Amino acid sequence: MAVISPSRRLRRTPFSDGVEAAGAKAYTVYNHMLLATVFDSVEADYRHLKDYVQVWDVSVERQVELRGPDAGRLMQMLTPRDLRLMLPGQCYYVPIVDETGGMLNDPVAVKLAEDRWWISIADSDLLLWVKGIANGYRLDVLVDEPDVSPLAIQGPKSDELLVRVFGDRVRDIRFFQFDIFQFEGRDLAIARSGYSKQGGFEIYVDSTECGMPLWNALFAAGKDLNVRAGCPNTIERIEAGFLSYGNDMTDDNTPHECGLGRFCDTQTAIGCIGRDALLRVAKEGPVQQIRPISIGGNKVPGCDRPWPIFVNDKRVGQITSAAWSPDFETNVSIGMVRMTHWDPGTCLEIETPDGMRNGIVQESFWL
Amino acid sequence: MAVISPSRRLRRTPFSDGVEAAGAKAYTVYNHMLLATVFDSVEADYRHLKDYVQVWDVSVERQVELRGPDAGRLMQMLTPRDLRLMLPGQCYYVPIVDETGGMLNDPVAVKLAEDRWWISIADSDLLLWVKGIANGYRLDVLVDEPDVSPLAIQGPKSDELLVRVFGDRVRDIRFFQFDIFQFEGRDLAIARSGYSKQGGFEIYVDSTECGMPLWNALFAAGKDLNVRAGCPNTIERIEAGFLSYGNDMTDDNTPHECGLGRFCDTQTAIGCIGRDALLRVAKEGPVQQIRPISIGGNKVPGCDRPWPIFVNDKRVGQITSAAWSPDFETNVSIGMVRMTHWDPGTCLEIETPDGMRNGIVQESFWL
Repeated sequence: MAVISPSRRLRRTPFSDGVEAAGAKAYTVYNHMLLATVFDSVEADYRHLKDYVQVWDVSVERQVELRGPDAGRLMQMLTPRDLRLMLPGQCYYVPIVDETGGMLNDPVAVKLAEDRWWISIADSDLLLWVKGIANGYRLDVLVDEPDVSPLAIQGPKSDELLVRVFGDRVRDIRFFQFDIFQFEGRDLAIARSGYSKQGGFEIYVDSTECGMPLWNALFAAGKDLNVRAGCPNTIERIEAGFLSYGNDMTDDNTPHECGLGRFCDTQTAIGCIGRDALLRVAKEGPVQQIRPISIGGNKVPGCDRPWPIFVNDKRVGQITSAAWSPDFETNVSIGMVRMTHWDPGTCLEIETPDGMRNGIVQESFWL
Repeated sequence: MAVISPSRRLRRTPFSDGVEAAGAKAYTVYNHMLLATVFDSVEADYRHLKDYVQVWDVSVERQVELRGPDAGRLMQMLTPRDLRLMLPGQCYYVPIVDETGGMLNDPVAVKLAEDRWWISIADSDLLLWVKGIANGYRLDVLVDEPDVSPLAIQGPKSDELLVRVFGDRVRDIRFFQFDIFQFEGRDLAIARSGYSKQGGFEIYVDSTECGMPLWNALFAAGKDLNVRAGCPNTIERIEAGFLSYGNDMTDDNTPHECGLGRFCDTQTAIGCIGRDALLRVAKEGPVQQIRPISIGGNKVPGCDRPWPIFVNDKRVGQITSAAWSPDFETNVSIGMVRMTHWDPGTCLEIETPDGMRNGIVQESFWL
């Protein structure tokens, strides 16, 4: 694959110096920003993530901040998930949909206060949708992208590492909740969350100057824990069934197609812009849906375009993410499959760049 | 620099097979899509562009299509440029601004009919802003991203090449106008436009299947013209003063700061969302503005982050794009400079990654 051309438009992060010093070998671009994808090798990074602890520069999870009297109302307009019982200090995974129920993003909403929210976004300029809605409905709310860059700590030794830097109170943070901690005199929100199944935290670093000092403090504290720089790992996230916006779903898909129906409280999420469309979808159910699919044969190449799925020469879906899993000794993948062929155990034929492969719909993700 | 990791999220284009076969050596990501940046070398590509003719895959200029009775009204809400006299068949460069006058994109608007427009966008998800506004104001208009991928023909031999494929009528297309031509039975819009000063066209290819046949037809017809695959060239575009959204300007900047005041008809562009804010700016003038700046010394490195500009240890601006120009035998650059130091001839000190350099504000771009 070719190299990536540097430019200011592909923004650096507060931690880029650390990422480069740690020897990032490959990058992707996400929200107009650099995101490392490989340090040692994808397989070695995967092994290390499952055994130790990694520090991930996920500044690309840019924040959309809503501030003002209408912040909560606007937040509910964006998502079909019912937010009425959500408390400050909680994080919710929220599908964001347009008026047709098409997914515009699948971020985590962070409720800082009744009148202040962060939306920690996947790869689309959600800021523009939110600003457009706020303007069009003349809401009393300020919407912008603050200087906040999440730093994730992931892996089984995450608690131990973070306790050393922020104290024992870190252990009390519950899953998808956050609390405020101090670093060099600054308040930082730390949530128990992250884009892996290995456990860990996301630190919302709210100033560029704070970036490298925090990065260095974590590495200094974690030497004997074998802490390393890491990044979201393709193999691990497919095994765990973490979807990737732009890969596994686009604005063509409803949350129900993505298996996110449980986050759609369309009966009660009054005010959600896509509610009417999704009520219809909820009633009839989707005709295609995301499935975990194992793929036979040796290691598949990278999935740089949708791979068509066939059964008896009829197209019934597509694979959008795939990787060889060392732990499960099979190719793991995520695909969108039509209802006629989505039952567990269904045999599929998959057109990959190096030929046809057999696939089998799985009962659940591998975890 | 590191390699780029392939994924479906970094979309391929209808011409990707051709771009790869032509040996693209480096890429950037633009509107969630791959854009080649180098074929031979940036310098060799530059020389060839100025002497012959190149075919550029600029599918990354995604289209936002507006269709319906309110399409024209919506278009005027988006931009401070007065569109009342614009006719079908014309293309306008239109700054797009939010309610504070901040630039959200700097696309070319293509008026297909009174009730149908394409916006050929720079690197931000303008679709989301336009959809948000259309929804919020309850406009009677459909907004989406159609399957349209521009293919640019650039360089002094562009007319000759295109005549061979589409006939003599190509010569009659006037600058920033388009007409409809046939290719293999399909209607294609061809405009005299493009992101270089070397002359040429942009073909709006409105189906993926049509992509490689057209690519191949152009290369077959242009063999003796020394036609090659190319891409927007950093050196040439800086010499010519073509700004790059995300590099030289962001949503922090007004059109006036970007030297685009001539496209702001704030007295007459009734309905533009940013009009009130820009009326104020137009009255007082910007306090910083884009300037062409020559930089002394040998070839500068790539500008992957803003380079601060100082005068007497006081920060007065920043450089955001820079390259060595073989033709002008100096480093050419684009920077944003405060009014105290923006007069032509002003000497500046520029902090580049390999040390301080001297810079001089130029009277005009190099062309």
